[in-house]
Amino acid sequence: MRLATIRTATGHRAVRIDGDTAVETGEADLRALLERPDWFEHAAGAAGPVHDAAGLDHAPLVPSPEKIICVGLNYRDHVLEMGNELPEYPTIFGKFAPALIGARDEIELPAESDRVDYEAELTVVIGQSVRHADPAAARAAIAGYTVLNDVSMRDYQRRTKQFLQGKTWEHSTPLGPELVTPDELPADPADGGVLRIRSELAGEIMQDSTTDQLVFGVVDLVVYLSTILTLNPGDVIATGTPGGVGDARKPPRYLTDGCEIVTAVDGVGECRNVCRSVR
Amino acid sequence: MRLATIRTATGHRAVRIDGDTAVETGEADLRALLERPDWFEHAAGAAGPVHDAAGLDHAPLVPSPEKIICVGLNYRDHVLEMGNELPEYPTIFGKFAPALIGARDEIELPAESDRVDYEAELTVVIGQSVRHADPAAARAAIAGYTVLNDVSMRDYQRRTKQFLQGKTWEHSTPLGPELVTPDELPADPADGGVLRIRSELAGEIMQDSTTDQLVFGVVDLVVYLSTILTLNPGDVIATGTPGGVGDARKPPRYLTDGCEIVTAVDGVGECRNVCRSVR
Repeated sequence: MRLATIRTATGHRAVRIDGDTAVETGEADLRALLERPDWFEHAAGAAGPVHDAAGLDHAPLVPSPEKIICVGLNYRDHVLEMGNELPEYPTIFGKFAPALIGARDEIELPAESDRVDYEAELTVVIGQSVRHADPAAARAAIAGYTVLNDVSMRDYQRRTKQFLQGKTWEHSTPLGPELVTPDELPADPADGGVLRIRSELAGEIMQDSTTDQLVFGVVDLVVYLSTILTLNPGDVIATGTPGGVGDARKPPRYLTDGCEIVTAVDGVGECRNVCRSVR
Repeated sequence: MRLATIRTATGHRAVRIDGDTAVETGEADLRALLERPDWFEHAAGAAGPVHDAAGLDHAPLVPSPEKIICVGLNYRDHVLEMGNELPEYPTIFGKFAPALIGARDEIELPAESDRVDYEAELTVVIGQSVRHADPAAARAAIAGYTVLNDVSMRDYQRRTKQFLQGKTWEHSTPLGPELVTPDELPADPADGGVLRIRSELAGEIMQDSTTDQLVFGVVDLVVYLSTILTLNPGDVIATGTPGGVGDARKPPRYLTDGCEIVTAVDGVGECRNVCRSVR
């Protein structure tokens, strides 16, 4: 099953994507849908108003998650290109919800930064509350997968040791377009399935890796995070990015006004965003 | 004016504290109150159901802020005791809302950490949306002040370079008890006014400093953060902690089962919390 949050003339709607059409489930967005204990059956059986899938206006897949949890330094190839050693523990940082944009929205390039970079990430969306999860409970808590482009203002990211101020600029971070449930995938990362992940800037491949490069896999991450806090429906866990980011290239490549950046996980979907200088 | 969010048999309520009594304003919590453009006049004139102020059950002052923004390494004395140099830019990290507890609630000490530490912090609550603020707009956006105890699991905080996993444990972080508007204070930190800040563990003074030790003051911080994102009503900015934290003491002093930790800013209020081992 594929689920999304779309914008309509009367507000956000959660929808099920059926090939060429999108069917409203009755909830205002994906988080509200996932907060129903019966979300899977409810969404599968929903028969609300129908939209043409070609013309959808995608909101951030989860417009207001309780938590956006990001994992850093989690691909073997990216860890090595940034000059770091493989970690013993996952590196965790956050974003605030107003950073999020839809999968086709414009990425805002602020005047204050001239080092805006892309990061394609396989992203977990939580479907049921879980704390102190064992691996089986962690798997069961994963509603499915999507894509997040962890856009990063590298100059601000490096002003101090804490990444947050480079990671949470307003309207910077595409999330979506769809939640894809594990049964829909050729290979489930929670079962060791391998998916291709890539990014493309102005038509040129920038990142091209596979999820078997993850140091901490999706189940590991849910187990680890649920030690610290309760993961709740709609929570977003961006699992980190592979090698090939613009800042590590020689010469560096940053996002510029008018360029298009595509971040994709095969079988899951792609964000395709034009960048726009603001202010 | 002093405002709070209390728990009642029928849910949260925003209240105005008038000495011995608390008067409901009609909103469910402080964030909902601050989202009214006329929040000050509305709260000042509210005449809802009345409670005995002595028996209030304080919820986290803002139970679900859009953002909890924490500033690290921001007191000259704390920067020096942690072995760091005075910073050029503020160090910014986040917490997620489920970390918050009320000003009299128990702090959960997780079995996974044996280095749980306190940090008394003067905390700003935002009262109107602001982006790209100049100093005057920043001052106007501050609804008032409260206290946050930025409880930190130092072992998890140091597992990686990113603080978040040591800072956002569930039910760890007292916030409150009250929002105090600037006109109520003997000295407004936004005007260079100096307030005493302290913490007391099991009756012993641990931190004792003044807000003129802040490297980045409250107005500086609102200006800086509003470059990155829009600050919205109910957003919480914890401005950092002075010297004297348990982890920097010789020998170290951590929070233990049954101990009481008081974190206070004179004129603003105090959090007084018993610590309790869980699981």
